[in-house]
Amino acid sequence: MNKPVDQSQFVTPTVTTGPLPASAKVYTAPAADPSLRVPHREISLHPTAEEPPVKVYDTSGPYSDASVEIDVEKGLPRPRTAWVKARGHVREYDGRDMKPEDNGGASGKYLARAFPVIHRPLVGDGTGPVTQYEFAKAGIITKEMIYVAERENLGRQAQLDGAQDRVDAGESFGAEIPAFVTPEFVRSEIARGRAIIPCNINHAELEPQIIGRNFLVKINANIGNSAVASSVEEEIEKMVWATRWGADNVMDLSTGRNIHNTREWLIRNAPVPIGTVPIYQALEKVDGVAEDLTWEVYRDTLIEQAEQGVDYFTIHAGVRLAYIHLTANRVCGIVSRGGSIMAKWMLAHHKESFLYTHFEEICDIMRAYDVSFSLGDGLRPGAIADANDRAQFAELETLGELTQVAWAKGCQVMIEGPGHVPMHKIKVNMEKQLRECGEAPFYTLGPLTTDIAPGYDHITSGIGAAMIGWFGTSMLCYVTPKEHLGLPDRDDVKVGVITYKLAAHAADLAKGHPAAQLRDDALSRARFEFRWEDQFNLSLDPETARDYHDQTLPKDAHKTAHFCSMCGPKFCSMEITREVREYADGLSDNEKKALNLAAEEGMKEMSEKYKEVGRQIYIDI
Amino acid sequence: MNKPVDQSQFVTPTVTTGPLPASAKVYTAPAADPSLRVPHREISLHPTAEEPPVKVYDTSGPYSDASVEIDVEKGLPRPRTAWVKARGHVREYDGRDMKPEDNGGASGKYLARAFPVIHRPLVGDGTGPVTQYEFAKAGIITKEMIYVAERENLGRQAQLDGAQDRVDAGESFGAEIPAFVTPEFVRSEIARGRAIIPCNINHAELEPQIIGRNFLVKINANIGNSAVASSVEEEIEKMVWATRWGADNVMDLSTGRNIHNTREWLIRNAPVPIGTVPIYQALEKVDGVAEDLTWEVYRDTLIEQAEQGVDYFTIHAGVRLAYIHLTANRVCGIVSRGGSIMAKWMLAHHKESFLYTHFEEICDIMRAYDVSFSLGDGLRPGAIADANDRAQFAELETLGELTQVAWAKGCQVMIEGPGHVPMHKIKVNMEKQLRECGEAPFYTLGPLTTDIAPGYDHITSGIGAAMIGWFGTSMLCYVTPKEHLGLPDRDDVKVGVITYKLAAHAADLAKGHPAAQLRDDALSRARFEFRWEDQFNLSLDPETARDYHDQTLPKDAHKTAHFCSMCGPKFCSMEITREVREYADGLSDNEKKALNLAAEEGMKEMSEKYKEVGRQIYIDI
Repeated sequence: MNKPVDQSQFVTPTVTTGPLPASAKVYTAPAADPSLRVPHREISLHPTAEEPPVKVYDTSGPYSDASVEIDVEKGLPRPRTAWVKARGHVREYDGRDMKPEDNGGASGKYLARAFPVIHRPLVGDGTGPVTQYEFAKAGIITKEMIYVAERENLGRQAQLDGAQDRVDAGESFGAEIPAFVTPEFVRSEIARGRAIIPCNINHAELEPQIIGRNFLVKINANIGNSAVASSVEEEIEKMVWATRWGADNVMDLSTGRNIHNTREWLIRNAPVPIGTVPIYQALEKVDGVAEDLTWEVYRDTLIEQAEQGVDYFTIHAGVRLAYIHLTANRVCGIVSRGGSIMAKWMLAHHKESFLYTHFEEICDIMRAYDVSFSLGDGLRPGAIADANDRAQFAELETLGELTQVAWAKGCQVMIEGPGHVPMHKIKVNMEKQLRECGEAPFYTLGPLTTDIAPGYDHITSGIGAAMIGWFGTSMLCYVTPKEHLGLPDRDDVKVGVITYKLAAHAADLAKGHPAAQLRDDALSRARFEFRWEDQFNLSLDPETARDYHDQTLPKDAHKTAHFCSMCGPKFCSMEITREVREYADGLSDNEKKALNLAAEEGMKEMSEKYKEVGRQIYIDI
Repeated sequence: MNKPVDQSQFVTPTVTTGPLPASAKVYTAPAADPSLRVPHREISLHPTAEEPPVKVYDTSGPYSDASVEIDVEKGLPRPRTAWVKARGHVREYDGRDMKPEDNGGASGKYLARAFPVIHRPLVGDGTGPVTQYEFAKAGIITKEMIYVAERENLGRQAQLDGAQDRVDAGESFGAEIPAFVTPEFVRSEIARGRAIIPCNINHAELEPQIIGRNFLVKINANIGNSAVASSVEEEIEKMVWATRWGADNVMDLSTGRNIHNTREWLIRNAPVPIGTVPIYQALEKVDGVAEDLTWEVYRDTLIEQAEQGVDYFTIHAGVRLAYIHLTANRVCGIVSRGGSIMAKWMLAHHKESFLYTHFEEICDIMRAYDVSFSLGDGLRPGAIADANDRAQFAELETLGELTQVAWAKGCQVMIEGPGHVPMHKIKVNMEKQLRECGEAPFYTLGPLTTDIAPGYDHITSGIGAAMIGWFGTSMLCYVTPKEHLGLPDRDDVKVGVITYKLAAHAADLAKGHPAAQLRDDALSRARFEFRWEDQFNLSLDPETARDYHDQTLPKDAHKTAHFCSMCGPKFCSMEITREVREYADGLSDNEKKALNLAAEEGMKEMSEKYKEVGRQIYIDI
């Protein structure tokens, strides 16, 4: 087996900073609360474009702000502590005592260095609302709600920029995407349970973000060390790296040792929501023996992580004893790690899952810190042969019941979904989820539309992700090229993120998000006008676009040349279109009419001559 | 500008040969004509699998047959000449005289070496049917039809292998995919115009293949030298390389010099259909000046290429004078090279396109060699902003008219489609194409579902390709990562092909192709049973799958280890499923029933307690 990583080698993590090409961080102040600074990325265009800069959604936090000095040892600024305290109903306390098992018993040179700064945690004191759901239900608009409304509008202003006009209405399948997002709309969506803002009161570094079918489709990147590889330092850079390329949030799926300390470094430096699967750490605490898990160990882990500021927990409470046997005839059985841990526990004890029997207590803990539920799909299909089977759907129905419980307890909820699903079975997943779970946001892994392309599962799943995003899924969990094969490295993380960004964007376009097409159109105009630099800069991955261009035409002169490598300098399709425009400008309405008539005449003639042919056998031998 | 490539450096092309891992070329003999040898690739599994080898569709020709000696200087064997001659109605002749402009006036060291062997061309003599369409209409089943039927069945035998049973019925959107393909079914589909076998009578090296919505979805890879880069040698290897990874056919989009000689080398060594866009070469013959094009130059080019054995021609005859002004307000105008060449010609002469006015003569030429039409979409959208506009659809309507003409003339026809189309506008393209063009096979480029990801357009378009393939498109033209940026190299071609293979396969699954899921299930079983080698070998790209695995767990021992890098050795989801199976096997029916009842009881209780919550404001402050 690989040796454990020597964590004494751990130095201050080096993270990737600085703006993307031609990009500047800009902050807008929402009218509803001008004290807030909501970040966007503004991409400047070449002066010949005579177009304003293009604002795009920015997940990268202060790391891409040239004016901010990053100090990973201190962590990011913590403005949200003041917001939370100002709302009241919370108290500060010492927090739970650290235990050796929190880091999997790692010691000496194998123990990862603790994050240098200690913050005392906040917790709801039981006197009033703490979660965004509770505030929304109470009719209160929080700063987080104002913040995400501004962010969703990409800095557009209702009156000035004609934001009421959609570029394309799309086909929304019943979603109700407004032309302009107001804080009140955000509140009402959260109150209906149709959207969440994952924002633990202890994750004060967070730039809040909303997840719901009437907002931009979000993506998640998974990171995390494992029993066989990777260090704390790598994980922090992976998080910064993933968000640089557009990961809206990050799940820390660490297993093995040093889980606690790794997570602390991550959260203190994370501008995006961090999710976890607490059962992973709980399992480490009982030395990997699933049957030794107890409610007490699990409960303790929830509190440990809630105090650190984890924004959402994946909890596989829908895997019930009665469903286990439904998976027996599957091609791939139970592939969810959390699902199979619980299945193993239930089989060993022949008891109902403690996640299910203690679900109300779990809600109470999560409510007290505003940790959102991500109700896990422990019985998701791991092969297209297993898609949409009774096991999967039985669990989904239970997740629907649990959603009601969690809402009643004041918690924010989203629902996890498959997995491996062929295209023709995707839509029914979305429809059933909306129906069973009261429109709580759906958060899907892929789905992968075929099993035959390991090494390319970012693409097999990107296809399914774009489709299910269009159908109504709120967040897409990325899949990297290494899925099923190994642990993703830096390049894999980037490819996974970009693939899912484009899938989410394709979904936004198809859903008819009012601002989505602005970037496509700006890039297409740049392409048409041979503004190569603008084309690179407007793309999701400017570095790769430029690199690919330079492999064929490396000279700088070619970046302004009015031709490309496909047709060469002598002939150019785009050049001809210019001539077409001149020609069309010169045509009178009568001339256009005459052209149409002539065309119809010719067509009719041809048509009469050949129309009957399809019905006769033409060839005589 | 880059220098022209010195073609005197041209040596005998080195092509990639040999079988893929664990694969053997097998040939089956159709019952209807046991003299035929229809190739498949058979992937062997590990003995512990206790499963038969998996047969997959094989496009790679003799290059992957270990028992065949390849000699690129001679070309592949030419069995089809005998088939064609046996049917009669053809005569052999000397063929057209070569002209310097056929190679763009290249001379001296810039002239590519001619292919060493000369074959005298065949042409229809006017005494009876020549094309597959004509034979089909006449009720005659050709050897090509028998061949493709056997090939589509992946070597399954109707009675023995239970081929009548579908794995999954899918959602076919009106396609009528049979459980087993018979030669008569092939004939009837071709006679209806719903499928084509692109097979020029002079492409005797061809392994015939069928393209139609009731068959496996095919993919095309574009290759071709350009005015700025690449040599004959590179192009031949690109073709062999693309088909090795699964390209069903290849379009030679060469521009610049040496087009004729490059194409001769290609076709003589091509086991797959070769398509071209003859207007590209015609343009070279008039030194790149579109307005100097004439019907005579074009006609001469058609004959030149038909004699060489090109299997289908893209002909942009639907770009009519009356439609040009419809593109004037587009974001990206006319992006099809063929479309813009013809637009330029029409504007210069203010005349209807000679492709349209001479369409019947074009049909007569193509019929005489059985060159299939690929009616080009010269007005396809080059940006999602331009999708489904009047220009695009006006052209499609004209293509429908021309389809009737071509059928009446005895030609095989397919129709080209977009382009750049957001997801919600894809289906209407397919529906309109089927309606306007009498179900002639649709052959689409992508479509790209967003414009913002240059460098990843194999993926933006793979999403659209999978969807439109599902909806009924018969062939998908690949897009490589270099699209819009530069010329694809060897790696780009491979990535493009694999991406489109997985998209086509996802479409086959969703359409309910009876044999499609067999490979998915075999791979999923291998995955579940930790047969790593089988998982690699069954995948579309075994090399990449193995490489990715080895990056994390390089030791050979890990390939048989019962764990993977995701969870490590201590815990494994798949292992637990084994225990679930033992448990389920031990449950009596009564015990299962009792479990279900208990679950329902608990759910009902929870439900009653919380059901009403959604309707009330929960929090009082």
